[in-house]
Amino acid sequence: MSSVYDVIVIGGGISGLTAAKLLVESGLNVVVLEARDRVGGRTHTIRNKEVQYVDVGGAYVGPTQNRILRVAKELGIQTYKVNVQQRAIHHVRGRTCAFHGAFPPSWNPLVILDYNHLWRTIDEWGKEIPVDAPWKAPHADEWDKMTMKEFIDKVCWTKTAKRFGQLFVNVNVTSETQHVSVLWFLWYTKLCGGTQRMFSVENGGQERKFVGGAGQVSEKLSDLLQDRVKLQRPVVRLDQTGENVTVETLNHEVYDAKYVISAIPPTLTTKIHFNPELPPIRNQLIQRLPMGSVIKTMMYYKEPFWRKLDYCGAMFIDDDNTPVEIALDDTKPDGSCPAIMGFILSRRASALTNLTKEERKKRICEYYAKAMGTEKALHPIHYEEKNWCEEQYSGGCYTAYFPPGVMTQYGSVIRQPVGKLYFAGTETATQWSGYMEGAVQAGERAAREVLTVLNFSPFYSK
Amino acid sequence: MSSVYDVIVIGGGISGLTAAKLLVESGLNVVVLEARDRVGGRTHTIRNKEVQYVDVGGAYVGPTQNRILRVAKELGIQTYKVNVQQRAIHHVRGRTCAFHGAFPPSWNPLVILDYNHLWRTIDEWGKEIPVDAPWKAPHADEWDKMTMKEFIDKVCWTKTAKRFGQLFVNVNVTSETQHVSVLWFLWYTKLCGGTQRMFSVENGGQERKFVGGAGQVSEKLSDLLQDRVKLQRPVVRLDQTGENVTVETLNHEVYDAKYVISAIPPTLTTKIHFNPELPPIRNQLIQRLPMGSVIKTMMYYKEPFWRKLDYCGAMFIDDDNTPVEIALDDTKPDGSCPAIMGFILSRRASALTNLTKEERKKRICEYYAKAMGTEKALHPIHYEEKNWCEEQYSGGCYTAYFPPGVMTQYGSVIRQPVGKLYFAGTETATQWSGYMEGAVQAGERAAREVLTVLNFSPFYSK
Repeated sequence: MSSVYDVIVIGGGISGLTAAKLLVESGLNVVVLEARDRVGGRTHTIRNKEVQYVDVGGAYVGPTQNRILRVAKELGIQTYKVNVQQRAIHHVRGRTCAFHGAFPPSWNPLVILDYNHLWRTIDEWGKEIPVDAPWKAPHADEWDKMTMKEFIDKVCWTKTAKRFGQLFVNVNVTSETQHVSVLWFLWYTKLCGGTQRMFSVENGGQERKFVGGAGQVSEKLSDLLQDRVKLQRPVVRLDQTGENVTVETLNHEVYDAKYVISAIPPTLTTKIHFNPELPPIRNQLIQRLPMGSVIKTMMYYKEPFWRKLDYCGAMFIDDDNTPVEIALDDTKPDGSCPAIMGFILSRRASALTNLTKEERKKRICEYYAKAMGTEKALHPIHYEEKNWCEEQYSGGCYTAYFPPGVMTQYGSVIRQPVGKLYFAGTETATQWSGYMEGAVQAGERAAREVLTVLNFSPFYSK
Repeated sequence: MSSVYDVIVIGGGISGLTAAKLLVESGLNVVVLEARDRVGGRTHTIRNKEVQYVDVGGAYVGPTQNRILRVAKELGIQTYKVNVQQRAIHHVRGRTCAFHGAFPPSWNPLVILDYNHLWRTIDEWGKEIPVDAPWKAPHADEWDKMTMKEFIDKVCWTKTAKRFGQLFVNVNVTSETQHVSVLWFLWYTKLCGGTQRMFSVENGGQERKFVGGAGQVSEKLSDLLQDRVKLQRPVVRLDQTGENVTVETLNHEVYDAKYVISAIPPTLTTKIHFNPELPPIRNQLIQRLPMGSVIKTMMYYKEPFWRKLDYCGAMFIDDDNTPVEIALDDTKPDGSCPAIMGFILSRRASALTNLTKEERKKRICEYYAKAMGTEKALHPIHYEEKNWCEEQYSGGCYTAYFPPGVMTQYGSVIRQPVGKLYFAGTETATQWSGYMEGAVQAGERAAREVLTVLNFSPFYSK
């Protein structure tokens, strides 16, 4: 029986690794099976001489994300503030408006009222949604039958607010307003502390980045876990017909354990052949939670020329043909490697996926030049990008979304264990789901669930 | 090289087996890998002494379904007409109305106009949708952003038509109006020849069943293919990095072939680990095509008592608590085994999935008794049911649906080969997609695609 692990963790992203850390600290015998040849999942820091380091995946952290900040601190990783000292830009079909703050202003009092009404409605309605059971909200059925497109069309009077509402959905959940359920989107926003907190840089979800890159969190967790983390082990089979759970990897290794924690996105659990089959609702839920679509881009320049123009680099670009809808300064905290990060979101990611990297680079620069009104944007010295839509072992980024009708009909089993199989992953979080913070919350919660059934207290080791 | 197959077919349902048959008849060396311990996929005929035989899966065929009727005829399988000689029943919250024909009538001229307007709109709008490229329809973007719930709310004026429109969606695509895109549903209906053809028994999609059961189609195809069909071979890996395609099964067998045809629902291809990874749009499409939810039930009685009441057994039951929304006579053509087939659809399938079989049986009988106004319905002598939501290797039934926004953003790659991997399966059909007919069309089309690239004419053998 010495070959039986206490717990197998599937997935070596932040959620799986924080789960494993807690279990190991409690004295358990743990193995982490990671499909890729690297840890980190949807966080990935690449290094080269042009960029020093860069997060091509998840990167931003902010206030109220106490768990990921605690983990990072423990690992000796420091944060720095994303630059928003100068003016942000709202570029709407040819016209640039510069402003300070998180949300673009308007001179039109109707638009101001309309914006205010949109944010208020999202936040107010969210108040009645239980974070751990959105399907139980008093209006759950009604809101789950509606798409965010319908919601925005109903709530907003002005074209300006409608367009910005659409961008708001695109940016926050890398999907289209017609893709997502109102119930889910209101729940998701609530979990971030509301519209302002979610969307803001200062005092919001994008306030800070990690010096040295967010990938370090997983790298350092993996170092702590040593050879408990096995790379290039995609799981193909999970068998609960025996006393222990048996898990097989693509390279034919077989692992046995008392419990298993799945720390991968729900849709990726479809890659596992289950015996016995999953319960009906779960078997159907995992077909219904697609991952969003995004290409993350970083444009490097010789100088941060935008700062001299009193622009901070933050841009909302609202135009039918722009690749990037939202951009932020990505210059290093010491001022080196001046860069602008831009997200190509949802429909734009799909539409531009078959272009060459060079073509995408060129089109992005054109819109940066238009938005900032300077030809300097046309002459980058380096370009990095990562198309998360192509990743078999992420499925997409940032996170899963719930299409209309899924939350109320299938959603209630999202965290429900299946025999000895427990569920982590940021999609199962009840605070900042979809973020690194949610990954930690879910990983530690799943670990504690297993510790509880094993009669362990997480506060004392074996 | 003798161990290299010409073609590996993944999936031993009707689509995969008809593809294999055409390839073998053309002289090719073919193997079919089926995950289950039986062929047939979403068709399955079970046999026992109480029922003789019964289709717990796909069963109905009708006019214009020439391919499946041709295949069945060739295999010596005969059809019989589903009984609709007596009156059908429309039971709406406590009130039963008996009628002849496919659609319930109304005494209210507003409702008649409203019904007519609903069917006309679905069929008229459908005319502009190209069957092989619905994403190219002139109004594709607009219609794909709408759910069928929005559509019905906009098109229908009366509550009666709205409720029947909802039932129409539930019955035809085993999902809710809020789940599905208008563009997709109009396309799907068009592929069946329109609302009347799709929904009707006489001269419609439910006109006939196969004597001996629809499962025989696959069983007999499998007999023809002999040991080319390998059961209990779930595919876990597909590698296109070498000269040939390598496919590995869960039991570690490795098959090499020049080409592969995937004849499984798109969502089930997520169970395969691909090397190289799938192209981005396809990687994301297969996360976005969930299978519908349905429990098929058959209630057996000593006598077909309904016929004596001048009821044919066809019932539409519109009530918040009924398990079955639509029922049809399922008595054998020789009059033996009197039975009523009933579908528990979508939200009802999800809601009732955790009841015992006995409880479902009891609740169904209660509503049959209410609808037909006789206690005889309370005393069945036997009950069969199949919950397709629990099937790992179907995902659900009858077919995949497209949530809003998926068709236009991701749908265009649905039949696009990936290297040497081609796509069959009823979801890829352009006539009667979702039906057995679509399975044959797609299987034969994919086989011909492979024959073409191999420079074979399907009309001459090697």
